[in-house]
Amino acid sequence: PQPGSSALDQKSTANVFSDGSTQIDFVLVWETLPWELSGQQDSHENRGLQEGSATIHKTWRKKFLDNLHAAGIHMEKHTACMEKKVVHYLLLSTPWSVLCYYAEELRLRVPLQALPRQTSNWSASVLQKLGIPNLMAQEVPNLPLDYYTCPFKANKLCWFLGSNQQDTFFSMTQRHQILHEILATTQYGHSREREVGVDQLLSKNVFTAAFPLHEVRHPRTTPRPASPVPTAVCPRRAPTNCSWRSWLPAAPGRKYWDSWGKWSKYQPLDHICKYFGEKVAFYFAWLGFYTGWLLPAAVVGMVVFITGIFLMFSDVPSQEICESAEQYWMWGCSSICPPSDLGQQNMIAMVVMFLVSVILYQAVLAIFLSSSGYFCFVASASRIASITGSVVNLIFILVLSKIYISLAHFLTKWEMHRTRTKYEDAFTFKVFIFQFVTFYSSPIYVAFFKGKFVGYPGNHMSFLGVRNEECIPGGCFTELAQELLVIMVGKQIINNVQEVAIPKLKCWWHKHKLLSTQKTRKEAEQPPWVMNHQLLVFEGLFDEYLEMVLQFGFITIFVAACPLAPLFALLNNWVEIRLDAQKFICDYRRPVAERAQGIGIWFSILEAIAHLAVTSNAFLIAFTSDFLPRMYYEYVHDSSLRGYVNFALAYAPWDFVLQSNTTCRYRAFRDRDSNLTLTYWQLLAVRLGFVIVFEHVVFFIGRVIAWLVPDIPESVEVKVKREQYLAKEALAENKVLL
Amino acid sequence: PQPGSSALDQKSTANVFSDGSTQIDFVLVWETLPWELSGQQDSHENRGLQEGSATIHKTWRKKFLDNLHAAGIHMEKHTACMEKKVVHYLLLSTPWSVLCYYAEELRLRVPLQALPRQTSNWSASVLQKLGIPNLMAQEVPNLPLDYYTCPFKANKLCWFLGSNQQDTFFSMTQRHQILHEILATTQYGHSREREVGVDQLLSKNVFTAAFPLHEVRHPRTTPRPASPVPTAVCPRRAPTNCSWRSWLPAAPGRKYWDSWGKWSKYQPLDHICKYFGEKVAFYFAWLGFYTGWLLPAAVVGMVVFITGIFLMFSDVPSQEICESAEQYWMWGCSSICPPSDLGQQNMIAMVVMFLVSVILYQAVLAIFLSSSGYFCFVASASRIASITGSVVNLIFILVLSKIYISLAHFLTKWEMHRTRTKYEDAFTFKVFIFQFVTFYSSPIYVAFFKGKFVGYPGNHMSFLGVRNEECIPGGCFTELAQELLVIMVGKQIINNVQEVAIPKLKCWWHKHKLLSTQKTRKEAEQPPWVMNHQLLVFEGLFDEYLEMVLQFGFITIFVAACPLAPLFALLNNWVEIRLDAQKFICDYRRPVAERAQGIGIWFSILEAIAHLAVTSNAFLIAFTSDFLPRMYYEYVHDSSLRGYVNFALAYAPWDFVLQSNTTCRYRAFRDRDSNLTLTYWQLLAVRLGFVIVFEHVVFFIGRVIAWLVPDIPESVEVKVKREQYLAKEALAENKVLL
Repeated sequence: PQPGSSALDQKSTANVFSDGSTQIDFVLVWETLPWELSGQQDSHENRGLQEGSATIHKTWRKKFLDNLHAAGIHMEKHTACMEKKVVHYLLLSTPWSVLCYYAEELRLRVPLQALPRQTSNWSASVLQKLGIPNLMAQEVPNLPLDYYTCPFKANKLCWFLGSNQQDTFFSMTQRHQILHEILATTQYGHSREREVGVDQLLSKNVFTAAFPLHEVRHPRTTPRPASPVPTAVCPRRAPTNCSWRSWLPAAPGRKYWDSWGKWSKYQPLDHICKYFGEKVAFYFAWLGFYTGWLLPAAVVGMVVFITGIFLMFSDVPSQEICESAEQYWMWGCSSICPPSDLGQQNMIAMVVMFLVSVILYQAVLAIFLSSSGYFCFVASASRIASITGSVVNLIFILVLSKIYISLAHFLTKWEMHRTRTKYEDAFTFKVFIFQFVTFYSSPIYVAFFKGKFVGYPGNHMSFLGVRNEECIPGGCFTELAQELLVIMVGKQIINNVQEVAIPKLKCWWHKHKLLSTQKTRKEAEQPPWVMNHQLLVFEGLFDEYLEMVLQFGFITIFVAACPLAPLFALLNNWVEIRLDAQKFICDYRRPVAERAQGIGIWFSILEAIAHLAVTSNAFLIAFTSDFLPRMYYEYVHDSSLRGYVNFALAYAPWDFVLQSNTTCRYRAFRDRDSNLTLTYWQLLAVRLGFVIVFEHVVFFIGRVIAWLVPDIPESVEVKVKREQYLAKEALAENKVLL
Repeated sequence: PQPGSSALDQKSTANVFSDGSTQIDFVLVWETLPWELSGQQDSHENRGLQEGSATIHKTWRKKFLDNLHAAGIHMEKHTACMEKKVVHYLLLSTPWSVLCYYAEELRLRVPLQALPRQTSNWSASVLQKLGIPNLMAQEVPNLPLDYYTCPFKANKLCWFLGSNQQDTFFSMTQRHQILHEILATTQYGHSREREVGVDQLLSKNVFTAAFPLHEVRHPRTTPRPASPVPTAVCPRRAPTNCSWRSWLPAAPGRKYWDSWGKWSKYQPLDHICKYFGEKVAFYFAWLGFYTGWLLPAAVVGMVVFITGIFLMFSDVPSQEICESAEQYWMWGCSSICPPSDLGQQNMIAMVVMFLVSVILYQAVLAIFLSSSGYFCFVASASRIASITGSVVNLIFILVLSKIYISLAHFLTKWEMHRTRTKYEDAFTFKVFIFQFVTFYSSPIYVAFFKGKFVGYPGNHMSFLGVRNEECIPGGCFTELAQELLVIMVGKQIINNVQEVAIPKLKCWWHKHKLLSTQKTRKEAEQPPWVMNHQLLVFEGLFDEYLEMVLQFGFITIFVAACPLAPLFALLNNWVEIRLDAQKFICDYRRPVAERAQGIGIWFSILEAIAHLAVTSNAFLIAFTSDFLPRMYYEYVHDSSLRGYVNFALAYAPWDFVLQSNTTCRYRAFRDRDSNLTLTYWQLLAVRLGFVIVFEHVVFFIGRVIAWLVPDIPESVEVKVKREQYLAKEALAENKVLL
């Protein structure tokens, strides 16, 4: 059934058949054992089973390729012999009539009319109006034209732009989509048993790979004849005599996208969309948009942080603490109540939840250190416990997240969704919930629960027999900030190292396996399908989105505690964008372009996180920070905050003093009978009132903004209307009636 | 240009031309003076101006009708001579080829395949499963079939169901839509000056009316040939010899929809949709849905109300009040602090806001009455003031709302919106905001502000020099309930009377004008276009929606204060549905069917009201009702509430007692130095905490429900998918390629 077949040593660096003109749309790869090729049969026993499956595979493959041939697909076969196996490359190309049929079937959009390109970039236009030179702008050659499009109709061909040039009329991504659709619907066995499609054959190992090729040259330079914009011809490398590392990235803008020097520039989104399809382009567009908006957040966070540091020196309560601490040290006794009471400790053996185990770990470590007798340990016991706790937490998190992903795959398959989108959404949602719980449970515990229910000296509350933890002396707010930085920065570093190292290692291993017996041939001389075959399989955008969305959660939900978080996120994302770009261009096989209307369920997740963040920050400011007690003290007692520390500390109750023969103070608003004071209740009312006001104001402003900013900008709406009108004109069948 | 013209005395009760077969799609009506018809010219001076405009009108009309004729529209002219004027009726009919052309242009959906009708009614299916006989079900004959449809394509005619019967292939509403489109795009003057369309001619009085006819028979009984469901032939009235009151309503189910006896039945929504189009059907579907869900709310409200009445007799605080009142009356002195302090009154002349004026009115009336000296007035001064205040408020509201609508029309026109939908949405939003402010400001004032900032004896707070009002002794909660009932029930009664009376009066006047000179002819003998012309112009659904949405606001935003509100709303809506139905069938000319995808911006408004209602009820329960103080007292002091009245009342401060030489008590948590007590702050914290918990719980549950209930039910989704598949099959052009 294979029409063309050529020798292995044919030299080819362009993506064409050996006739020099037929475009390669897809490559199918399979491996056989050497004796299968030569027809010689060994009589070894251990080959029996292998042969059985090999025979079925052969039948399936033959039927599949026969059906492809019957569908009109052009093919050319190449083989590469190695020591232990033979690799077959089948190059596929779709002829014009098949392209037309499937383009109509798939409702692919084709250009009707070129569109004068406007700068749809609002930041560029704002900067231009203000007369500020735009540092982010970059001139990328071969800008793809924008078109009014409409679904392809074969009998209206003359209406479409460029329909006289059959080999450039459909874009490469559209050709891939069409051939991918054909491959996915071609039978290889009985239709009754649903033996259909190349994906099943791949999972059954009948084929080892099916992929479109990366482009050697720039993707189609000015193919449309009626192009109103003269496109500059860019100096391109000669396609001959280049190693695969240099020709591959030539595709959508090696120089302009994935290089580190371009960190401050706009991404060439139009090129990305043209080369990788809408789905990938949406990811990078969203990532760029998000990173752009991180900049103001990072600046504000920095300002807040630096102001905070300067204010610390002139802060009256801080000075009072230092002074009193000096006094107390001089007197040789600490007036702060001891953080834990060893006599009441009672470990419970059964600790089910991982979270509880980390909390316990911290409590135990703190007790151990403070009872160890070493002075420096005792002084900073709880701080050491909390820092090491954060690290342990991070390690737990990273291990658990891997387990969760497998579990989510299993659960989602079990639910049997009708469409791929629904499956993906359900899976995404599950993994996100899992990850959310692992990553955020510890900060949420520190932010809202730790130190809130400790009771008072002489009457400590306990949970599972262990006394509830207190925060480090700096307060839970400080501890939260510290925990966040450890988790967030640690995770980012680990992730980025992973993202750099793992694909490189995989690539190396993959190439090593394939090339182990081909040492004689130079890399540069290999045909493109071999070089593409050596790359990694693209596995979807899920991990990229998940990482970013978790980061978004960290910087929004706890931003009040850690104003530096947006800065770290920004630094990470500048690296992240270019790392992802490099992965897409250099490490992955080219994915089949997928159409998409947005970022899918991630949008809902981001929205939910934003809502949660408002509530979370309201409670953080009201209950975890010192903001409201200070305001209260300033307003009611002394506007210079003199005496605030005294005000915020309660004296240990009389019975505790009598029992322990020592007086001390602790953070609370209680009198010497340990009853809550009027101040406590007033402050509680202020705190709750603050939460209510904060939430309502923020949500109301959010609603007003959402209402003022249209979902679809007016310029786009006008374009859509015009496109609909043009499509109606082009596709109308009713002109004959009048 | 008018092809057919027949005598006035031609008898016709069916909607056909005088040839007995051509269907009438639209009727154009204009009036001329008698001498214009006969050609005789009078030389009176005062006719000069009239004639000038009459000549222009004649030219425009001629050109318009010429263009219609050129577009292929069939016409037949009838005239009716009266004493002072001649009424011309031009019957229009669209031939097959024009229908086909415009059906494709407008992308009208035509049937591909009949769909087995399922009971898509969930309440019916639930009742059936439970085995409960469904009282709401009714058998309506001539149920329209459900079809898989797709946009019409003239060259694919053979694929569509019923395409061999040209006069029944397009439904009547589609024929109206097509002719309406033609009328709207036909020129009557210069295209440069945008002299296009029948709407402009109507507003310039060139035509007096343009309308489709109500159907005489049931709308097309089983026209599709491949109908799988045998449709019962219903006993219908003979179309001849019936007065117009009886034939008109025959259309979509006189017996089954608008009669009062059917109050408990489902509305025949499929019939309504078929006869009036989607937009009207959506209104009635939404109204039915809303009324259905009012039933459980009304039942719960009733139960709460009746339980409340019964509990009142055993309520300890109520008994204590009665007992103490007896004592105090016996002693001849009231221990309740006097509600107002006349010495400090000081009227301000400038009262801008209407709202302030009503508040002031109440305050003044209360003062006046309590100072009048009549005992019975003094005792109930504030109650009388509040009731009459509510009535004044209602009258103000009704007058203002008329002004607002004109203002909104003016503002929205000034904004110059691009499309009709946008114009309508902007207008709707504006009027709603206006109406919201007028209707709700007074209840909101009573609910959240009245009596909250009154200060204490000896130190009353004031606003604009008038002392802030206190609530009636029963508390603001009672006053709110009373105000709500007056506004809501009063508005409903006035509205319903309006809705019944005004159309009838208008109809009578309209007919009277038209028929004043036609006394000799019997009504029954008039042709249908004359009878349709006597009906009122349909002015859109805006008023109907507005009334219902305001009602929704009343019953949700203040439901905690007035649990009977849903019951009154339910009673009103049972009347409302049938009243609206009667209006649509009997009083209005048939509207041109409009396509719609939902209830439009009203959905967003309802959503916003629902959100507001959660917040509002949280604050109502926490701050306006006695619920939390009672709970607090039960929990902290005495679970039988004995002594609660004493607990809730503060003693007048010492200086007030010394000054006024009388001791008294007032509602507050203050000590004798009029400082707020610990109890006050504890209770405030409890109240604020309640608001936070209530809001978060309710919104969270709402989100979960919104997430669990899909926007599009799965059965509908499957149907849509199947419809898309069928449409693709039917309209594919690419079969020839393979």
